[in-house]
Amino acid sequence: MPTYDTTRSEALLSRAREVIPGGLYGHYSGSINRVGPRFFSRSQGAHFWDVDGNDYIDYMCAYGPMILGYNYQPVDQAAQAQSQLGNTVTLAAPMMVELAELLVDMVSAADWALFGKNGGDATGLSVRIARAATGRKKIVKVEQGYHGVAPWMMATMSEQSAAPGTLPEDGAHVLQVPWNDAAAFEQLISDHKGDIACFISSPYDHPVMQDNLLPADGYWQKMEKLCRDNGIVLIVDEVRTGFRINLAGANVSYGFTPDMICFGKALGNGYPISALVGSDALKQAAKKVFYTGTQFFNAAPMAAAKINLLELQKTDAANKITEIGTALNDGLVEVASQQGYELVASGVPAMPYYRLANVPSETHFAWVDECVKRGVYLLGYHNHFVSSAHTPADLQRTFEVANEAFIALGDPASHQNT
Amino acid sequence: MPTYDTTRSEALLSRAREVIPGGLYGHYSGSINRVGPRFFSRSQGAHFWDVDGNDYIDYMCAYGPMILGYNYQPVDQAAQAQSQLGNTVTLAAPMMVELAELLVDMVSAADWALFGKNGGDATGLSVRIARAATGRKKIVKVEQGYHGVAPWMMATMSEQSAAPGTLPEDGAHVLQVPWNDAAAFEQLISDHKGDIACFISSPYDHPVMQDNLLPADGYWQKMEKLCRDNGIVLIVDEVRTGFRINLAGANVSYGFTPDMICFGKALGNGYPISALVGSDALKQAAKKVFYTGTQFFNAAPMAAAKINLLELQKTDAANKITEIGTALNDGLVEVASQQGYELVASGVPAMPYYRLANVPSETHFAWVDECVKRGVYLLGYHNHFVSSAHTPADLQRTFEVANEAFIALGDPASHQNT
Repeated sequence: MPTYDTTRSEALLSRAREVIPGGLYGHYSGSINRVGPRFFSRSQGAHFWDVDGNDYIDYMCAYGPMILGYNYQPVDQAAQAQSQLGNTVTLAAPMMVELAELLVDMVSAADWALFGKNGGDATGLSVRIARAATGRKKIVKVEQGYHGVAPWMMATMSEQSAAPGTLPEDGAHVLQVPWNDAAAFEQLISDHKGDIACFISSPYDHPVMQDNLLPADGYWQKMEKLCRDNGIVLIVDEVRTGFRINLAGANVSYGFTPDMICFGKALGNGYPISALVGSDALKQAAKKVFYTGTQFFNAAPMAAAKINLLELQKTDAANKITEIGTALNDGLVEVASQQGYELVASGVPAMPYYRLANVPSETHFAWVDECVKRGVYLLGYHNHFVSSAHTPADLQRTFEVANEAFIALGDPASHQNT
Repeated sequence: MPTYDTTRSEALLSRAREVIPGGLYGHYSGSINRVGPRFFSRSQGAHFWDVDGNDYIDYMCAYGPMILGYNYQPVDQAAQAQSQLGNTVTLAAPMMVELAELLVDMVSAADWALFGKNGGDATGLSVRIARAATGRKKIVKVEQGYHGVAPWMMATMSEQSAAPGTLPEDGAHVLQVPWNDAAAFEQLISDHKGDIACFISSPYDHPVMQDNLLPADGYWQKMEKLCRDNGIVLIVDEVRTGFRINLAGANVSYGFTPDMICFGKALGNGYPISALVGSDALKQAAKKVFYTGTQFFNAAPMAAAKINLLELQKTDAANKITEIGTALNDGLVEVASQQGYELVASGVPAMPYYRLANVPSETHFAWVDECVKRGVYLLGYHNHFVSSAHTPADLQRTFEVANEAFIALGDPASHQNT
């Protein structure tokens, strides 16, 4: 392979460390494989280029926001046109109403919408609405489920139940159940009779560092019935999955109806906007909870989101992306197999999590490094994202790179645990 | 006056109520005077136009973000240029480092910066960093001080200490002191020996529905000393005041040095970005606290913020806006006086809060309504914002409108409390 050089990325990271704690932070620091680029210089379609000029086929899609492709012209033009009229003004734009109407039309469980910036704005609002609606305190979530960095969330994330800066009190009313375990939820309901406000969960389980798990047969139906029977608000966090499983809501594919759905990431194809949608039964409670932010009413991201959603509809994007993801998974499994490696793809095809099953995890990370160095941007510990901009040529090149990466690793037998 | 018509605004608000709880929400619903526009159609300079075509001189500036003028070309062009390279990508942009370097250079108390979207992202992070750095639980804030809608904040905002959707537990470790009352803070320190992590406050007191209060002589020096003597982290919330009092930080004007400063609103002249800046002493704690959001790394708002800050420096904007605000206040006081009204302008000149002192508050609201109907957008209950785009002609027209509005109200004696 040609020399792989990330000198400029490393130099910029050193500069960054002078003025930014950690240099990079949040999931953008976690994103860093052991080798690889640190800063991008430009992006187009399913590719980005780093500051050293290396070209990558990007299977992270900005961790989800990119769904139609980077610099997708109809979306960018819509944002630009709204910007020329006005973006952040003393009043809201008519575009806010148009976008809410479109979401209510598209998403089958939605009777209303409220807009924020990040997914965490929507998830935090959803649990407050559930508490306001029920007068109850307890939030139930899935173990290792991630719904943002608010203290109620972070306090549950580590074993010592105290992420730095959060208090044990922050998580005092947050309960957890294993994924796919309706019996555990039933037990919690019995243990906390009449005090559970809501159950919040992604539509399937996509934690880091382990295989992602789809809902077991009948799981969501059992969970929905337990919620209905016990007056518990059912919240689906589709911040990550939104518009990649089903444009009408992942719940439509999985056969149940939630009370609220949180959207973010892909909603604006890269423009900053998130949304909470919900049922008429919760509209009054939603009105009571004070929810605002300086930037919640930016009109340009709303214009971007509207055109993004219309383009997703027009191109049947969720199904298209599922097809691309399926082809990607099949091809990678095949390439791996030819080199003696067993690659497991879990989660939905539009968001595959990869693991090499017949070698230690160390070898999996080494394979990811070899792919990155050759221009295929993967992450070792996190699910990936597929977009409708990934072309057959991108997939073909990905398979070639994956193959070269396996060859660089050598015989899988040489990587066995000792 | 010509007929004032807001038919289209009202029709759009009715449509909004079908699909958005409340139709408008957060501070954008509170913004509504008894009469006035609900939705904008375009904006330019210090003006916006509503969906009925009415033209307003805007003294709310989108509640602060607009500081150089709406659709300010150098800022918009910078955002657009970065967008064409890439906005939300899998990696951060070099622009993030450039912006952090610029903030560290401009803001005297800043050794580092972390970026988010809304002011509430920065304030929430600041108290988590203070807790992580000190290992203490208590947050001290000023009574009626507003630092966003996170549960720790909202739980302190109402007398029943329970805003809808928040729990009493959310505010359990939040203590409050009156503004300008260093003795009360000293008492709290004594009552909660060794358990106060931080004091968070705006640089002066700008609550709603009452005169805004500047710091008393020596107040900030006493507060700074109490913090230093007791290992308490001192946080200034400049989300609202940022870049309107002093480009190096309001604390420079008021003669003290905080540990962290929260910026938002005017940082991007309308592009969604906020920042927390802080001292080297807190850099390690800042690195430990997990802080992230899908949209925190958007590059276009960072490019906008960089050019915005450079333009603010180049035009000596904080001083210029202070001069414009002083002229506005002086003119309005004079016009009021000529019609027998006593207008009180409080707060800094760049963010004036107005009150008619010799009539009931009802009459003040009526005067605001008469101004709005004539194309001067004021709010009855909230501080205003002045920008560097407000021209002498805007001010002259404002005085004419204010005068006509007083004439429409008639003799102040007819408005006395009965």
